[in-house]
Amino acid sequence: MKKFINTIENLLDDSLEGFVLAHADIVSGHRDPRYISRRDKARPGKVALISGGGSGHEPLHTGFVGRGMLDAACPGQIFTSPTPDQMLAAAEAVENGGGVLFIVKNFAGDVMNFEMASELLTCPVATVLVHDDVSLPEHQGMGRRGVAGTTIVEKIVGAAAEAGWEFEQCRQLGQRVVAGTVSMGVALSSCTVPAIGHPTFELGEAEMELGVGIHGEKGRQRAALARASEIVDSIAGILWTELDLKAGESVLLHVNGLGATPLMELYLMYRLAHQYCSERGLQVTRSLVGNFTTSLDMAGCSLTLTRLDPELTALWDAPVHTAALRWGC
Amino acid sequence: MKKFINTIENLLDDSLEGFVLAHADIVSGHRDPRYISRRDKARPGKVALISGGGSGHEPLHTGFVGRGMLDAACPGQIFTSPTPDQMLAAAEAVENGGGVLFIVKNFAGDVMNFEMASELLTCPVATVLVHDDVSLPEHQGMGRRGVAGTTIVEKIVGAAAEAGWEFEQCRQLGQRVVAGTVSMGVALSSCTVPAIGHPTFELGEAEMELGVGIHGEKGRQRAALARASEIVDSIAGILWTELDLKAGESVLLHVNGLGATPLMELYLMYRLAHQYCSERGLQVTRSLVGNFTTSLDMAGCSLTLTRLDPELTALWDAPVHTAALRWGC
Repeated sequence: MKKFINTIENLLDDSLEGFVLAHADIVSGHRDPRYISRRDKARPGKVALISGGGSGHEPLHTGFVGRGMLDAACPGQIFTSPTPDQMLAAAEAVENGGGVLFIVKNFAGDVMNFEMASELLTCPVATVLVHDDVSLPEHQGMGRRGVAGTTIVEKIVGAAAEAGWEFEQCRQLGQRVVAGTVSMGVALSSCTVPAIGHPTFELGEAEMELGVGIHGEKGRQRAALARASEIVDSIAGILWTELDLKAGESVLLHVNGLGATPLMELYLMYRLAHQYCSERGLQVTRSLVGNFTTSLDMAGCSLTLTRLDPELTALWDAPVHTAALRWGC
Repeated sequence: MKKFINTIENLLDDSLEGFVLAHADIVSGHRDPRYISRRDKARPGKVALISGGGSGHEPLHTGFVGRGMLDAACPGQIFTSPTPDQMLAAAEAVENGGGVLFIVKNFAGDVMNFEMASELLTCPVATVLVHDDVSLPEHQGMGRRGVAGTTIVEKIVGAAAEAGWEFEQCRQLGQRVVAGTVSMGVALSSCTVPAIGHPTFELGEAEMELGVGIHGEKGRQRAALARASEIVDSIAGILWTELDLKAGESVLLHVNGLGATPLMELYLMYRLAHQYCSERGLQVTRSLVGNFTTSLDMAGCSLTLTRLDPELTALWDAPVHTAALRWGC
């Protein structure tokens, strides 16, 4: 294992400390329990958006804390859910009379721990559960996994909360974005979890894992490595079917790198996916290309489609100022 | 070799086409000859900033085209200089009465081709040569290589040009930033050039290449893989000496990923480098952490220090709106 670390025990705290130092104009860092919050206090009555999950997917979620997106993020250890005390501390710090909306990727540990925190909170609280990974219909008996579509949900609901939407409106908006968002990934290599020290899975020199999970979980199919256009056709076809898209609809197309794949290849995948959509009469009206929901040092990428309407498009376009996503302000 | 490509011949054009599609609000793409330019025409009299170089370092330079930074970028084939016809076409397209300033990384092919283009242009033209890599005093008989400090030069000079600085002022500013900028990288793995199909160099399981070039060129030392803090101390010590820094000075600290290194590790390196500076009385007043000058899929990173003063700081803070760097607008 070749990584820039001092000790495995301190890797997360060392890294978070660097993150907070580098973005001190946007975020504040808290230890014991660990959470990252917006530096500027939210307006009274604003719905507080909090997310979190295992670390190793950076910039998700810490990189999305800031104006127009999350109020706080709770990072767990690598690929391990954060604990309820983290969500509680974060909620108590950022709740300002508007209630707390948790945005949670659908994994058993995350769901359980955010639920425990919800039960302990006295303010209005609800959860938007993201389950966009259409690779497998079931994972750990929990339904679909939550993956790169989470960024889209956090951006759109974040804009609404910033604009003064009320608690129940934000919750319903989140569910609407989730219902209109599908993703699927493909790995060319495994990631290596520092505490384990060797790759999570083995892939042959001419193999890929179609539908890989963001922790290196098994996907839909182990297949022979194909040309980029065949990979895109295969994934985009599944996304298209799952979202039941019709010609004439507008979508956001998100090509997400899993950590070790160069931008050059991500833009190539974007072009192919854009072409796939255009040829079927879909309007790709918004896009996002880059490393947003990563899996440590995994080579690979995922495609995400979100069905857009004018309201969702305007919320996507609204100003955002976080470490990892910025426009309009 | 495992990459998302269709054919090696079309990789660059396919990728550039995706880049232009994804950022059509910011850039326009041109083929034959290849260049990327700002979508909005620059103000009459504005100094036109043009950069370029071999591809494979994305987002450098195409990702820096836009308001407050470059007017155009000329991408060569992977790790290969662009040709003079590209710079000429780009210059003719974006020059608007203010002259053309080329920002060029110090590599033989780039220098030669930008010089040829300069000779053919009839408008005022000059070059700011970036040579920030202090790993080696000499490369190809050309002096130091130009690496990740290029981003800093392009941002600061871009802000000045946008603010209406005149040609000679922009040129001198570029030289001033270059004189105050030093970088050094470290590789944990080689990159693989698609047309070659195997790693450019071999590193043992417990080895690193200190001072690696952004094309995988030999660095200062092949060494045993060390703890992150030892690596940072070693590199930061060299940067400190080369820049002849004194306690009390202000610097910009840029931790740049070479392509396959997770953000978590880059922020950890940032924390250590920040600590190194702070302990010696340096004020790290600005920072940039992420993948900006990459080397395809190389695992590794580089540290860059730029000496700041209030004027350079204000130019760094000025609005920028490009695919890869955005703030203030």
